[in-house]
Amino acid sequence: MAGPVSATGRQVSVTEVSPRDGLQSEKVFVPTQDKIRLVESLVAAGIRSVELTSFVSPRAVPQMRDAAELVRHFRGRAGVRFSALVPNLRGAEAAIEAGIDAVVMFASASESHNLKNVNRSRADSMAGFRQIARIAEEAGVALHGAIATAFGCPFEGDVPVGNLVDQARRYRDLGISRITLGDTTGMATPGNVVPVLDALRTAVPEVGIALHFHNTRGVGLACAYAGLLHGIRDFEASVGGIGGCPFVPRATGNIATEDFVYMCEESGFPTGIDLGKLIEAAGTAERILGRELPGQVMKAGPRLALSSMDVVRTANG
Amino acid sequence: MAGPVSATGRQVSVTEVSPRDGLQSEKVFVPTQDKIRLVESLVAAGIRSVELTSFVSPRAVPQMRDAAELVRHFRGRAGVRFSALVPNLRGAEAAIEAGIDAVVMFASASESHNLKNVNRSRADSMAGFRQIARIAEEAGVALHGAIATAFGCPFEGDVPVGNLVDQARRYRDLGISRITLGDTTGMATPGNVVPVLDALRTAVPEVGIALHFHNTRGVGLACAYAGLLHGIRDFEASVGGIGGCPFVPRATGNIATEDFVYMCEESGFPTGIDLGKLIEAAGTAERILGRELPGQVMKAGPRLALSSMDVVRTANG
Repeated sequence: MAGPVSATGRQVSVTEVSPRDGLQSEKVFVPTQDKIRLVESLVAAGIRSVELTSFVSPRAVPQMRDAAELVRHFRGRAGVRFSALVPNLRGAEAAIEAGIDAVVMFASASESHNLKNVNRSRADSMAGFRQIARIAEEAGVALHGAIATAFGCPFEGDVPVGNLVDQARRYRDLGISRITLGDTTGMATPGNVVPVLDALRTAVPEVGIALHFHNTRGVGLACAYAGLLHGIRDFEASVGGIGGCPFVPRATGNIATEDFVYMCEESGFPTGIDLGKLIEAAGTAERILGRELPGQVMKAGPRLALSSMDVVRTANG
Repeated sequence: MAGPVSATGRQVSVTEVSPRDGLQSEKVFVPTQDKIRLVESLVAAGIRSVELTSFVSPRAVPQMRDAAELVRHFRGRAGVRFSALVPNLRGAEAAIEAGIDAVVMFASASESHNLKNVNRSRADSMAGFRQIARIAEEAGVALHGAIATAFGCPFEGDVPVGNLVDQARRYRDLGISRITLGDTTGMATPGNVVPVLDALRTAVPEVGIALHFHNTRGVGLACAYAGLLHGIRDFEASVGGIGGCPFVPRATGNIATEDFVYMCEESGFPTGIDLGKLIEAAGTAERILGRELPGQVMKAGPRLALSSMDVVRTANG
């Protein structure tokens, strides 16, 4: 699924993050049965990798309090990889105990964000990685790493690429084969994605890089396209674009999975995902949350779903 | 401003189309004074090219009924190029009489859309170009050409590239130095933009190509980025993303000028536009229309407008 970057194959892997990144900012608890319904609709569309939940403190993030129940529900499902974020050893133990396929360790590339996010320093976060790696290996569970605020920190601004390189090497030394670069608050642009990819490709060529963009400033899909052109084939997205940043009330969240899949399929990068069914899953998400979501293809439909309307003249050049 | 495509210079020219393409679908007439206020705010931000209005039948598009008044208001304004769409000779005469700097002839690349849009065949539209070109030349007014539905037609689907090439050659033969490819209903993708650009560059290398994308399916800025990478430096956009397609109720319209400028500036393509003032102009547009607009940077701010909020922990990887 991950593996080193290849410029030859054009097949794109999509990890759906709506149950985790998409829902974690939702103030009202989404019933576990609705989360299951959402994930089933995504799997029915052909999604083969789902970041299902996060084993964080239920006090800090009440929305994720059903993490173990969710993982147990999908345990052993063939053909789909279910992953979960684990902030610490206790979270990793719980995720493995529940039957997760892959655990995702994470730390921010910037000190301030790491402190705000998990209440400890980057060094402390990274010091904890080794134990998590050990128990994952013992349990035969896949191990992934994520770098949050990879393209900028809302408190510090630009993040030195060296921070990312150090953290990526740390992950690599622990045997991790897949690292996600998280654009946590939508600060990636095509202009800063490319140099980061170049630096990491040089530093850890044996590691597969996944990209996780937010559309907070409208350029999420342009960043993804820049990544595609630079050989990245592993992306994370959230159906309907669920997952607004809680600090930017009217801004959108993750790039919408269906918009990303649409762009890929129309640009010669096959995903193996049925766009029509994915749009249905976006509709399911919209009904569950009870509000309009920012995804665009779910509204306009694919480009060749031709209009049969007897339209008025618009004198539109 | 236009001129042949250059891969060396990175300076990008932005034509603001909100007063025309942005407002033409608005059902409630926007007072002329508000249109003037919007344009002034855009010029204050550094916009140097404005598609101001359209000289169409006031019965067909009542929103454009103040076309002559608007043009007269800005007549002779130094340092800004004001253009107007003209569907026929009568419109061109009126635009020139009012004192426009450039007239934009247009026809669709697809027959069905041309019929729906201006109630005549493509051949009839193109037959009328010569007279428009003649009076523009006599008046010393710049002449531009637009190709609507350049990346797909909502009724016919994919449009043969040959249609675009024929139309572009027709424009070229009339002495036109700037041709806009209009993604009228948001059917462009990075995958179909690139081959069209290659074909036109081969067929009419002496003509400057401008790109006009809609974000109907979320990929507008990705298409613009593909255009930038292919050497295009002339783009059209609408502040705030005003201009939804009337046939797709919840879909967004043109790419938002401030989101595009943000992407350019952050990716090493200078625009000469002040992003902060452009965001103010988007706010002006929002107040005039009295509703939330789809632009994203106007909500989140530039990426280095750092947060001073004492944020809650989000356990966000």
